[in-house]
Amino acid sequence: MGIRVAVAGASGYAGGELLRLIAGHPEFDLVAATAHSQAGRPVAAVHPQLSGLNLMLTATEPAELADADLVFLALPHGQSGALAAQLPAGTKVVDLGADHRLADAAAWELYYNSAHAGTWTYGLPELPGQRERIAAADRVASTGCYAVATVLALAPLLRSGIAAADDVVVVAASGTSGAGKNAKTHLLGSEVMGDLSPYKVGAHQHVPEIKQATGALSLSFTPILAPMPRGILATVTARPLGGADPREVLQAAYADSPFVHVLPEDVWPHTAATAGSNSAHLQATFDVDSGRIIVVSAIDNLGKGAAGQAVQNANLMYGLPETTGLSVFGVAP
Amino acid sequence: MGIRVAVAGASGYAGGELLRLIAGHPEFDLVAATAHSQAGRPVAAVHPQLSGLNLMLTATEPAELADADLVFLALPHGQSGALAAQLPAGTKVVDLGADHRLADAAAWELYYNSAHAGTWTYGLPELPGQRERIAAADRVASTGCYAVATVLALAPLLRSGIAAADDVVVVAASGTSGAGKNAKTHLLGSEVMGDLSPYKVGAHQHVPEIKQATGALSLSFTPILAPMPRGILATVTARPLGGADPREVLQAAYADSPFVHVLPEDVWPHTAATAGSNSAHLQATFDVDSGRIIVVSAIDNLGKGAAGQAVQNANLMYGLPETTGLSVFGVAP
Amino acid sequence: MGIRVAVAGASGYAGGELLRLIAGHPEFDLVAATAHSQAGRPVAAVHPQLSGLNLMLTATEPAELADADLVFLALPHGQSGALAAQLPAGTKVVDLGADHRLADAAAWELYYNSAHAGTWTYGLPELPGQRERIAAADRVASTGCYAVATVLALAPLLRSGIAAADDVVVVAASGTSGAGKNAKTHLLGSEVMGDLSPYKVGAHQHVPEIKQATGALSLSFTPILAPMPRGILATVTARPLGGADPREVLQAAYADSPFVHVLPEDVWPHTAATAGSNSAHLQATFDVDSGRIIVVSAIDNLGKGAAGQAVQNANLMYGLPETTGLSVFGVAP
Amino acid sequence: MGIRVAVAGASGYAGGELLRLIAGHPEFDLVAATAHSQAGRPVAAVHPQLSGLNLMLTATEPAELADADLVFLALPHGQSGALAAQLPAGTKVVDLGADHRLADAAAWELYYNSAHAGTWTYGLPELPGQRERIAAADRVASTGCYAVATVLALAPLLRSGIAAADDVVVVAASGTSGAGKNAKTHLLGSEVMGDLSPYKVGAHQHVPEIKQATGALSLSFTPILAPMPRGILATVTARPLGGADPREVLQAAYADSPFVHVLPEDVWPHTAATAGSNSAHLQATFDVDSGRIIVVSAIDNLGKGAAGQAVQNANLMYGLPETTGLSVFGVAP
Repeated sequence: MGIRVAVAGASGYAGGELLRLIAGHPEFDLVAATAHSQAGRPVAAVHPQLSGLNLMLTATEPAELADADLVFLALPHGQSGALAAQLPAGTKVVDLGADHRLADAAAWELYYNSAHAGTWTYGLPELPGQRERIAAADRVASTGCYAVATVLALAPLLRSGIAAADDVVVVAASGTSGAGKNAKTHLLGSEVMGDLSPYKVGAHQHVPEIKQATGALSLSFTPILAPMPRGILATVTARPLGGADPREVLQAAYADSPFVHVLPEDVWPHTAATAGSNSAHLQATFDVDSGRIIVVSAIDNLGKGAAGQAVQNANLMYGLPETTGLSVFGVAP
Repeated sequence: MGIRVAVAGASGYAGGELLRLIAGHPEFDLVAATAHSQAGRPVAAVHPQLSGLNLMLTATEPAELADADLVFLALPHGQSGALAAQLPAGTKVVDLGADHRLADAAAWELYYNSAHAGTWTYGLPELPGQRERIAAADRVASTGCYAVATVLALAPLLRSGIAAADDVVVVAASGTSGAGKNAKTHLLGSEVMGDLSPYKVGAHQHVPEIKQATGALSLSFTPILAPMPRGILATVTARPLGGADPREVLQAAYADSPFVHVLPEDVWPHTAATAGSNSAHLQATFDVDSGRIIVVSAIDNLGKGAAGQAVQNANLMYGLPETTGLSVFGVAP
Repeated sequence: MGIRVAVAGASGYAGGELLRLIAGHPEFDLVAATAHSQAGRPVAAVHPQLSGLNLMLTATEPAELADADLVFLALPHGQSGALAAQLPAGTKVVDLGADHRLADAAAWELYYNSAHAGTWTYGLPELPGQRERIAAADRVASTGCYAVATVLALAPLLRSGIAAADDVVVVAASGTSGAGKNAKTHLLGSEVMGDLSPYKVGAHQHVPEIKQATGALSLSFTPILAPMPRGILATVTARPLGGADPREVLQAAYADSPFVHVLPEDVWPHTAATAGSNSAHLQATFDVDSGRIIVVSAIDNLGKGAAGQAVQNANLMYGLPETTGLSVFGVAP
Repeated sequence: MGIRVAVAGASGYAGGELLRLIAGHPEFDLVAATAHSQAGRPVAAVHPQLSGLNLMLTATEPAELADADLVFLALPHGQSGALAAQLPAGTKVVDLGADHRLADAAAWELYYNSAHAGTWTYGLPELPGQRERIAAADRVASTGCYAVATVLALAPLLRSGIAAADDVVVVAASGTSGAGKNAKTHLLGSEVMGDLSPYKVGAHQHVPEIKQATGALSLSFTPILAPMPRGILATVTARPLGGADPREVLQAAYADSPFVHVLPEDVWPHTAATAGSNSAHLQATFDVDSGRIIVVSAIDNLGKGAAGQAVQNANLMYGLPETTGLSVFGVAP
């Protein structure tokens, strides 16, 4: 008998990807998947890609999760705190939502407009010392999708001192699954196909998380909705301070990280190459005209940006190899 | 040490998918990947989704494949025959190409306009008795992508006698990866996005294969290029002869086939639900106005339609569970 | 002062396309655009592609339409009848909805499950004698989107007697705008991109309309949702009865129709080539194996399939050249 | 008889869009369309969306263009100079290529690696005083696609002094038609659908043009290929210097420009809303965290970014209203 695993919030896109990864994980046994309005329906009715997975969605209530050794929370922000508080103390929990990521309660309240639920160990294993902290934790707050793409690109630049922390500009585009599975007119296929459009310009809620995880002092962040189901491409530019080459800084930072690939020189990331995987692809250069450092990162927003990252954290929490049940290879084309 | 595996023709889309599947297969060790114009380049330079797979493409020559226990041929049609003839007799070979599928040399010559290379065991395990034949074979001709989608939908209808073999109409649409990776203007993204277009209307080369595998006597087959990278949706209609319900016939036919899912009543297949998997999704009904039987099937043309099917065949040839290293679950959205 | 034109139901996709066409029409003056939940908002807030068109959406009520000489009804089926009955007798009306298309009240009631509103002149000018009937009418029921694509392909075959009326099989795929602008989960971009899926299999409501307009006695019709915003590709196959070549029959039928293009031999239609236009592209051949006639047609479902067709009808009703304010050329790529 | 117009380089995407616009232009008569490898084929064989336009492509030679009053050059960069030099002195010429845009020959040679052909009047009518200069010119160098999107967003900020000219960061994503119609593997539909990828990072050839047209002193520019046929979305950020509100600055700058729409507050541009039109949509705000000005612009790269812009310039050269034959409304969805 393996580790008993439950997913709360299994009807959304991150929840569906979690179910797929857990079903293929050699140490995890899926014992419960919960939802709100979809409770009572078979998993495969909500996620047709999981046809053959015979499990019913139950209601998102503590009792449904009580048997699990490990619980993944894939809930709308603001809902994890209350549920997590009702789980047994010994249950390991990975929260894919934003509730427990920020150390600064004021920043939480500013961007999320609700009470702060507390701060858990930050679930980005590729940060220095973080694997050990995650391994020692029972509660881990997994990283936000835009934050993963941005932090992996930016943190080594600032940590190594080769870029200025007070002049960072990020433009990041995401596939539509990042906007969730709720039916909204502006997310209809007819609207998004053939379209690029920015949103939440000038005030995205991932900014404080990125600043906390990188030490950036000033961050201009513009998110864009892109006509594809999955993927985030983040273009991170920063004013250089001299010192080492940014690509070499990235290579050194991720030499021991199996999911982060600094691509060969002059090869730039493609989001499609990361689809279905837990990998991040990075490349860096200097802009000829302005001299700025440009780093581009690509991830699957549902993989390294959500469900894959969460499973990676859970692997570390159980002392398993961090790649267990995850793929470094994407499904392309 | 596992089974030593080589892929000939590894630079194309089916080849790339084979490499991905082999890399994740617990019993297969990838020892060689060959190509023509791409020989000498790293695999990841040709398939960026395989970043982290450290292997060079070598030339497609018998010497490069001689060390392998198992060789997958993913070559343009007409090229498998000559290469296969030069492989050691004991090497197990799965041909993803068309060369060895047809029993009727004249049909081959009519549609492919070249000499027939011979006939191998037909690699569609879901046909009656075929698992046993494949398990006993050293050389297997894997099924064509459109043929998989069509044969799975049609064969049980004709075998059971509930549909007429002389009045079958099929319209099947495929994602663009089915058209290959050669640079052609009509396959540019600018051309295919937002576009549906038929091609090879009235004379597609998969027709004799479908007739051979199903016993159809007359087949109208129209293929369509669809604006998506992967997936085939086949709409198969046939004149009913009475007898059992077509959906029940399909359920009975595939009760023991782990990759074929006859969906719950009134749920129709989505190609996206099969992406990245080796599954086929099927549904059937009667047309209210004409009375015709309508069966719709969905597969991933690179999965069950090519690389996944080939690995499934290889599993059977080695006495492994047919699901080894394959996923029944798709990567969606 | 030109012809005063109003659009009822201007917030949907067909409504938006009508507004675009009317705004560019040299004889039409747009005086009112009405909606339900969007009433009170500027047109450009609902249709950002119409930024620069300074008009407010008003409520869909007879008073708002009373000033118009010509009213287009782009309402959900079942709503045109009641509204049309309240318009002044002298107002010319083109109904884009289904309410007034069918002569057979029983067929209406079977497929639409509501009372039949009556029968208007059928608005497909390319049918024999229909231009004259439309020119003489004050009330015209414009053709359904799937019906346009199918009828243009099929009607000449049956009229000329070269195909059997009792053995017609149609598979037609549509872009997502055909499914409307209401927010539904299965129409989200995340769901439809990369996906083909059939729907309403075996019982689509356009079947009686197609039979009425073509004389088909039996029609198997399978609609498919395709991953593109616009376009319908219909594959129509029929059992041949001998006689003239189907391509020549189509050429003769449409020699005087400026919007219907029978393509050069061996050139097959692309939906993308019709986007934004009022054109239909057709091609025909015989299937080599079955001998069946295959005709493929492509239209823009919002153009010739809805708004363009409606404007063409209105042009005829006012004695204008039928191409006035319409484009025969598509916007591609 | 109207103005006799020819298009040199009519087989590419900008060329096809020019043909469409000229065919619908009330004052232009299309007399010749030339190409290289496609010479001798009917226009509709190369551009199926122009079925019904009966014209043969001829060879791109001065003799084929000698009869025209007005010639549009839509050639690969480096080819306009030689051809233009052979046209009669009285022929009006609009060059869509880069050859005659830059005043600085050294910048040309650095980015294009060839001899500079000379400098023509810069064809962006929305710059101050530029309408008059274009109206007085016989030779006009139309603006590059990325440059249009960036210059419209940036020029008013720098001209009004509210943003610093030495700290501008631009990330701009383009649909695939911007990469042309030549068959290249990385532009295949299978590659681009579902994918975002940057290219020419740190050294794009439009940088000197943008600096010349805006007065920017330092420009970090990152272009991205996006999975859609048409459209450019440019995100322009700059360090604020205080003074007027950026949105009001944009509104004042474009009050008399019929194709530039500063959207209502909090409404952000969508590329899809500009498809098929000659419009640009703009919006601006301050980034909450960094205080930077963010302006986002959307255009159709083949419309305002190429063919539409060129026709607008030609209208001005002939004293026609600049909107003649062009649409301010997009074709959406």
